[in-house]
Parts: sequence; structure tokens; C-alpha cells
Amino acid sequence: MIYLDYSATTPVDKKVLDTFNKVCIEYPGNVNSLHDLGIKSKNLETYITDEIAKLLHVKSSEIIYTSGSSESNNLAIKGVISKYKNRGKHIITTFLEHSSIIAPLNYLANNGYDVDFVNIKEDGLVDLDNLSSLINDNTILVSISLVDSEIGIRQNIEEISKIVRKYPKCIFHVDMTQAVGKVDLPMEYVDLASISGHKIYGLKGIGLLIKKDNIQLEPLIHGGKSTTIYRSGTPALPLIASMKTSLELVLDNREKHYNYVKELNDVIVKELKNYPKIHINSTINSIPYTINFSIKDIKPETLIRALSSKEVYISTKSACSSSDSMSNSIYALTKDKELSNNSLRVSLSYKTTKEEVMEFLKIFKECYEKLDLRKENENN
Amino acid sequence: MIYLDYSATTPVDKKVLDTFNKVCIEYPGNVNSLHDLGIKSKNLETYITDEIAKLLHVKSSEIIYTSGSSESNNLAIKGVISKYKNRGKHIITTFLEHSSIIAPLNYLANNGYDVDFVNIKEDGLVDLDNLSSLINDNTILVSISLVDSEIGIRQNIEEISKIVRKYPKCIFHVDMTQAVGKVDLPMEYVDLASISGHKIYGLKGIGLLIKKDNIQLEPLIHGGKSTTIYRSGTPALPLIASMKTSLELVLDNREKHYNYVKELNDVIVKELKNYPKIHINSTINSIPYTINFSIKDIKPETLIRALSSKEVYISTKSACSSSDSMSNSIYALTKDKELSNNSLRVSLSYKTTKEEVMEFLKIFKECYEKLDLRKENENN
Repeated sequence: MIYLDYSATTPVDKKVLDTFNKVCIEYPGNVNSLHDLGIKSKNLETYITDEIAKLLHVKSSEIIYTSGSSESNNLAIKGVISKYKNRGKHIITTFLEHSSIIAPLNYLANNGYDVDFVNIKEDGLVDLDNLSSLINDNTILVSISLVDSEIGIRQNIEEISKIVRKYPKCIFHVDMTQAVGKVDLPMEYVDLASISGHKIYGLKGIGLLIKKDNIQLEPLIHGGKSTTIYRSGTPALPLIASMKTSLELVLDNREKHYNYVKELNDVIVKELKNYPKIHINSTINSIPYTINFSIKDIKPETLIRALSSKEVYISTKSACSSSDSMSNSIYALTKDKELSNNSLRVSLSYKTTKEEVMEFLKIFKECYEKLDLRKENENN
Repeated sequence: MIYLDYSATTPVDKKVLDTFNKVCIEYPGNVNSLHDLGIKSKNLETYITDEIAKLLHVKSSEIIYTSGSSESNNLAIKGVISKYKNRGKHIITTFLEHSSIIAPLNYLANNGYDVDFVNIKEDGLVDLDNLSSLINDNTILVSISLVDSEIGIRQNIEEISKIVRKYPKCIFHVDMTQAVGKVDLPMEYVDLASISGHKIYGLKGIGLLIKKDNIQLEPLIHGGKSTTIYRSGTPALPLIASMKTSLELVLDNREKHYNYVKELNDVIVKELKNYPKIHINSTINSIPYTINFSIKDIKPETLIRALSSKEVYISTKSACSSSDSMSNSIYALTKDKELSNNSLRVSLSYKTTKEEVMEFLKIFKECYEKLDLRKENENN
């Protein structure tokens, strides 16, 4: 098996699962209980939160535990909109964002909010001039991912923040789900940041929303005591603890991992460029973990199924939007419908071996040639 | 250690943890991925959902996975309010409800909704005459727990539903969190029902909202494909699978467990009644799993700490509201402030042994007498 779909989800690391099991067994008490079993759990939660804060260079009070990035993104967007509803009705985002950004914004657009999509330049970066022309005193929120899930473009958050900061009432949310452990996290420039466990060899069902202390939020989930007033529910201590292990795994060797994956990326991209019908969508600003490309004449689903039958796993677009046909991200980047309908994504990990890469390229060639030959025959 | 705080949270059963680990390792693919790893995960999700539906006597399409009952309760309440906002602005609930019901309703009350609390009779049941007088054509939602967390009153959902059903536009939500595995679940009489994993020897971070097919909801978490359109986010397959194991554990031997716990309850209540300063708050309608009582002159926190130092764990009220002093539930039942300020909860499990019960009563007597003597000395 050659798994090259790490941007969709990552296999759980044994260390993460060990943490989860240990906490499940050794910390049975509810964090909110007054007895010693509760206090023991509460103390662990406090320790874990302090450690996560150190890892992310934020304060402990700035960490909100959620069920994952979809919840974090919804809480960031709706929490801001609801809390600061008197400030304005204008929101800015991009077509590169994940469905858990686009869907709540569509919902708001249907409920009286004005949502603008800032232009993406040919190199994949946000058009800063366009952003400057869109943002105004009525802009309540700007939500832009640090690294998008499909093309892996790394945005310049510092430069974007300079524009946003000219409008003190505007709040800046950055989805960091695909960026954690891959690039530096520019926490100092953002108000809110979303992070997910299952993209970093952690568990599905746990995520973070980083919320700077000076920002207020209306909770999505109201209720009793929890780790913060912004998200109720019995703290899921084993999941919370597992998040620390996941973050350590990917943050402690980030640069080493990045350089290694860059080597793998170079081998794959060089090879793919030899195919005349393949167009590489990833740009100079894409991180090496993500290789997005389109193939003329071959349906992406057909190639994915062919590769899958050989136990090679890659994807079209992001897993969460696989039912739609066209990629809005690729269209925003290329303005080309054919490329947008035919995009594929290979996503790498520091766990990917060079042998896997060579084997992938070999199987890819076989599948490609078979499908291309079939297509040629159909056309003749 | 004698753990008698099962209503706050339950220790994870080994079978549940085994399921979780197995699925983490053997099903790494994202349910939404198009390749075979994704399809394998999707097939497991479909199978698990079908099995859970059978266990709960509902349809597979009626199951929404959430992060727990706090989310389920918020989704039920806000989802209905948002979807049917043109139907009315009146909501009915009780003072017995969990903070994850009361808090979203307080939020709505501050935002133009009219929330009524139906009277609780001396036997703990909802006053049906009062309910009939409160409900009207403007009532959009009635939310009443099947079993409340503090006193363990089992409400007559069938009788309540007869009143609600006279108003076809009114939706009936029942929080079943504390009821699952203890009493029959009257799914046929409700529109929406909340269930949590960690109250039934399962994992923190997973819950269900049962939503009958004829009811619509606006999601709290908008986004891409998931198991339903009502809650986005990558399906947390290992947590989902663990939920099936938890439900099987408690549903398969429900009656046997109930009768056994009834025996334990009888022993404890008989003994507590010998203390002249103890008042049993639980009524004839409380399930045997929950024993709520108040002690004159002794602060509940003091007794909890004394018991905790002997490794005996009981609680005041529900864990999620432990920071407030008075119990609204006990006040609604007794109209007595002293009882409401001094309530304690012993919550039992089918895993509780008779030896634990005898040891608890012995240690309770020691702690009680020591604190009572101290109090007498203070008074003299």
C-alpha cells in the first residue's frame, strides 16, 4: 500500500494512540467533578493546555478545544459575526478555502451578509491590491487559510495582516489546518486560528481554535463549565491529551521534515512534467507536501480508481468536497475549466519513503499509459 | 476506590476502547475519500450506523453524530429555532434540565424568545395541567429530559407527547443522556433525542442526536460532506464505532442491570433514612441509579472532600454546574432553599458491587459523624 493522501487524513501515530489509551484508563474522572478523581483530571487538563500553548506560542487562555477544524472554523466565523454583529456585515475570504469556511459563509450570505472573494494571483497568492480595495469600515471578518488543502499555497499572512490591521474593528481568522507541522505558524499576526488533530497523525474528533484574549466570541455550544466559556461540553480529556502528542510529533522536527519532503516533491514533479498531457497546478508558493496537477483527457476519478486497484491512494480535490465536480480552488488559480475539472492531488508526509515515491511513479506510469491508450482508441 | 459518580461520567469499558483502537489502526482512510481506503471506511460507517439504528429502534437516516450531548442539545434547540423561525417564538422546558439545555435557552431568551419553565410536582413529574396551560400556537419547541441528571426523575414522555402533539407545529426534544441503558427509550414519541457516549462506559467526544426524518434542522457546523447534511466535519470513525459498542453494553442487559441496581438503591436509601438530618430528594419517580439527598448543617462540598480523602467519590448536583451554589432542580422539586443548597448525589452503575455499597455506607457514617460532631461543637 502506498498512501499519498495525507492532506485528507493521516494515519494515527502509535504514540498518539498510546497517550489516548493511557489517559482513558488512568484519568477516569470528569474534569468538572469536585472529588479527587475530578481534580486529578483537571490538573492534567491544565498541564496539557499549558504545554500546547508553549508549543503554539500562545497563552493557555487562548486555547479552545473543539471537535475538529470544521467546528473551529464555524465557531470562529459565527462566533465573531454573532458577537460583533453591530460592527458590520461585510466578510472577505478566498476561493481556496475549505468547505467548512465556504459553507458557513454561504449561510451568512443568505442571511444578509455580504461576502467577497479576494482574487488569487497566478502564483497562488492573495492579490493584496484587490484585498486593499475590498476591505472597508464595514468589514467585520477576513478569513484566509495559511495553507489551502488543494493546492497547498502558503499565503503571506504577515502581509495580509498589515492590510487587515488598518481596520481595527476587523477580525482576522486563519485556518491553519493544513499548515501545522509543515510551515511556521504566524500566530502573532492573527486573531483566530483553526487546527485539527487528524491532519497531524492525531485522532478524528479533536481540534483547536486559538482565540487571542482580546477577541470575544459567542459560543456555538452553550452550556456548563468546560475548559473555556467559549465552548461547553464535558472536556474530552483523552482526546485533549492526544492533541499534545500530535503537535509534538510534527512541530519538533518541522524543518527537517520539510526539507526531506521537498526532496520527494522534486522527484515527483520532475517526473510528472515529462507527461505532455499533465499540467502542474501547484505553484512556486505551494508547500512541498502538496502536488496538485491536472491531466488532459483522463477523468480524475478513473485514474484514482485505477491507482486504488494497485493499492496506491491519491485524491481529487479535498476529501470533504469530493461530490462536486469542479474545483473552485483550481479555477480561482487558473481560470481554466478543464484544469479545474481534472485536478488530482498527491499529498506527502515525512513518513513517506523514497521507495514509496519510486513505486508510485512506476504504477502511475502504468495506469496512465493504459488509460491514455484507451482514450486514444476511443478517439480514433 | 469507590466510585459513585457514574452520572458525571463513566469509566471507559475495555470493549469500547478495544473497538476504538481496532478502528484507528485498521480503518485509516477518510470516509469521504474516493479510493479503496476511503470506501472501506465508508462501508464501516454505514454498517455501524445501521447497527446503532437497530439498537435504538430508529432509522439509519435519523442518526446524526455529534461531539456529545452538549452539542446534541445545542443542535436540537438552535437547529429547530433557526429552521422554523417563522413558526413562533415560544419555548417550554423545565428546571430539571442540564446546563447544555438551560444555557442555549437563556441565550435565546436574551434574543427575543419567550422561555417558560413548566412546574414540577412534588413527585418530580412535569405538571401536565401546567404544560397544557402554557403550550400554545406560538410554541415552537418543548425540551424535557427523559431522566434528569440530578434527581433521576423519569418523566412520562408518552403523556407529555400527547399534549405536545395537539400542536402540530411544535417540536418535541428529549434529552436522553442520563436515561440510555437505564430505562426504555420512548423514541416513538419524540422528534429529537440527545445521547452521549461517556455516560454509558464510552468515550468523551462522541454523542448522537436522533432526528426524525420529518424534522428539519439548520446545522450548527456547516461544511462539506459528512455522515449527514446536518453536521459537517470529517466523520470520527473510531469514535462512531465505539458508540455502537457502548450502546450494546448497556442496552443488551438493561432490565437485568436495572433490577440489580434497584437492590443496591434499596440498601443505600434504607440506611440514609436512619440519619435524622438527611432528607432524600429522590422521589418514587427517580430511577434507582440516582440517589439525591440533602444534609442539614453539613456543607455538601465538605462531605465530598471528606469522602474523597477516603477514596469515595460522590458529587453535588451535576458535574457541569458545580460552580453554582444552589440546585435549581432541587428547588423546583422542593421549593426549599436549604435543601437546594445542600444536595448530594450518589449515582450507581450495574458495575457497582454490593461490597462497594457496604463499604461506602461505613465510610459515609464515619465522615458524617465526624463532621456532625464538629458542627455540634461549633454550635455549643
